[in-house]
Amino acid sequence: MANLKQVAERAGVSSATVSRYLNGSLSLPEATSASIDAAIAALNYRPNPFARSLSRGRTDLIRMVVPDIKAPFFSALVAAVENAAYAREQELAISVTLNRPGRETRYLDSVSDRHVDGLIFVTNHPQVAPLKSRIDAARRVVLLDEDVPGAVAPRLFCDNEGGGYLAGRYLAERGHRCVAVIGTGDEMHSGAARYGGFMRAFDELYGTDAQVLRKAGAYTIEDGRRLCAEVLDAGPGVTAIFAMSDELVMGTLDELAARGLRVPQDMSIIGFDDILPLDYFATPITAIRQPVEELGRMAVEILLDTDWDDPAARSRVEILPVRLVERSSVASVAPPSKATDQQEKVR
Amino acid sequence: MANLKQVAERAGVSSATVSRYLNGSLSLPEATSASIDAAIAALNYRPNPFARSLSRGRTDLIRMVVPDIKAPFFSALVAAVENAAYAREQELAISVTLNRPGRETRYLDSVSDRHVDGLIFVTNHPQVAPLKSRIDAARRVVLLDEDVPGAVAPRLFCDNEGGGYLAGRYLAERGHRCVAVIGTGDEMHSGAARYGGFMRAFDELYGTDAQVLRKAGAYTIEDGRRLCAEVLDAGPGVTAIFAMSDELVMGTLDELAARGLRVPQDMSIIGFDDILPLDYFATPITAIRQPVEELGRMAVEILLDTDWDDPAARSRVEILPVRLVERSSVASVAPPSKATDQQEKVR
Repeated sequence: MANLKQVAERAGVSSATVSRYLNGSLSLPEATSASIDAAIAALNYRPNPFARSLSRGRTDLIRMVVPDIKAPFFSALVAAVENAAYAREQELAISVTLNRPGRETRYLDSVSDRHVDGLIFVTNHPQVAPLKSRIDAARRVVLLDEDVPGAVAPRLFCDNEGGGYLAGRYLAERGHRCVAVIGTGDEMHSGAARYGGFMRAFDELYGTDAQVLRKAGAYTIEDGRRLCAEVLDAGPGVTAIFAMSDELVMGTLDELAARGLRVPQDMSIIGFDDILPLDYFATPITAIRQPVEELGRMAVEILLDTDWDDPAARSRVEILPVRLVERSSVASVAPPSKATDQQEKVR
Repeated sequence: MANLKQVAERAGVSSATVSRYLNGSLSLPEATSASIDAAIAALNYRPNPFARSLSRGRTDLIRMVVPDIKAPFFSALVAAVENAAYAREQELAISVTLNRPGRETRYLDSVSDRHVDGLIFVTNHPQVAPLKSRIDAARRVVLLDEDVPGAVAPRLFCDNEGGGYLAGRYLAERGHRCVAVIGTGDEMHSGAARYGGFMRAFDELYGTDAQVLRKAGAYTIEDGRRLCAEVLDAGPGVTAIFAMSDELVMGTLDELAARGLRVPQDMSIIGFDDILPLDYFATPITAIRQPVEELGRMAVEILLDTDWDDPAARSRVEILPVRLVERSSVASVAPPSKATDQQEKVR
């Protein structure tokens, strides 16, 4: 069978160019990519992954377990992991749990059973009892996005605490001191950390002289509606909502619209995730952006490069930074805490 | 090892209930699902799929090949296929080609090589020469969403022609007779059919007394911007744009906003796909909705249930209906062709 070198020779480029072209990390002029495609077709070339797994007795198949593939953050994360897996010549099997514990433990067992070389594991209910022990037994598991307390596994998160802090700081500096936080409760690492960061910012700016109403549920549109309704029903006074996911932002917008409330004139909103096209929304939504490409790339790297016999490597924790993308969904309210906040941000 | 029946007995429910709970087709009261989860954990139960593949010598792995997993339509389609595959106890390997011919032929070969039981194949460049012969050689391939002319394989599409017709009819009935269609050209089955249906509607209502400007590119945001710019630069007169994908709608909105043009006062838009949250856009976008759940479900059904030795079954073509979701992005222009169109639809 033809190899990479023969394809490169026929196409008149280097082997590295063919390799990078095939793994998508290189943009080539039309003529060059056409000549590589022609060489691949003429030589009936098949890149390594399938051939390798036969010869080495390894599956070269990694599995990614996600609660849901339709949610915008998860679909972006799956895309990022797929791209990184391909670059490392690994097949990716994607398994959706829809939050069923029976599914999660099954997929964890597929590592022990040697059906896959390793697992990138994203869960939405970290507290379920069998998870920790199954993760420990499976060994080659990377926890991504959400923690499973006590499990022995490398972990990779975005800076949830820092993102919460950015959101809290942004609202506090614009004069909001009676606000609501809607998201998950402390049973989720992400919910606890985002809330914790938010409170740190509020404590810094206001001490005890502020009011933060916290409502907990799931990261869904439905809970966005429900939690926003609870906030509004709790009485007037709240001027801003920190909604911890794109879906919660959508649900919040639904509920505000149903009550005839405008964003940001009647209610300011700041979100988290920033995967949906928030730029195009009726009021473009200010949000904390997740580093989703980087999360996917690094998850694959950790899974493939970890020395699983090294206890320190197996308890590695990586935190990737987030940033605030400013749009038009947060107004300033009087009295502003800084001179730069004098003009209202209304669009 | 425990079986389904033992889990059901311990949980005090029927085997069918456990089965449907595990495949996600059943919503249960909290207490019931908790008792099933507890029984699964206590009995260390593992559902069938992994066990089966060992005993039967089949992989029980199907592969879905998509051009891109980040595009909203594709990510929704992948989610729908994954759900259907799970219900049929099949593992799903998802492979993203990013439009590289080298990748597509490789994945097609993975069927012949018996690494997977079959392939659900979605392509964005159906005209590339090796595809047809590789599909014929691979046999167990379902063509989804886009055609590969001449290949011997069952096909499953949404009603692209009917969707184009609905869009054309909707614009024509609201008095638009100088319009633009932006999407792919005739090299794509979807682009040809959507345009064909659009023209059929315009011909019905206006005969030759209308002007339809067609601009062809890819289903991307970038091409949405570029093709919309070409339409606007071609001179005044166009009152409505039919944009053949969610991404083309986004690009069109970008370009209109950049030129200070309002939707629908200065330009009407009708889209196709309707996967993105178009309800939340500054002007909610009227669009043809793809039957994405149904496409996923039926693709898996065809792949698993086709008799591949039956030539008739192998040339089966299924077309699923689409519908128009009316929002606020199309204004009526004078003179309306019907009494019901008197009032302008502006929001």
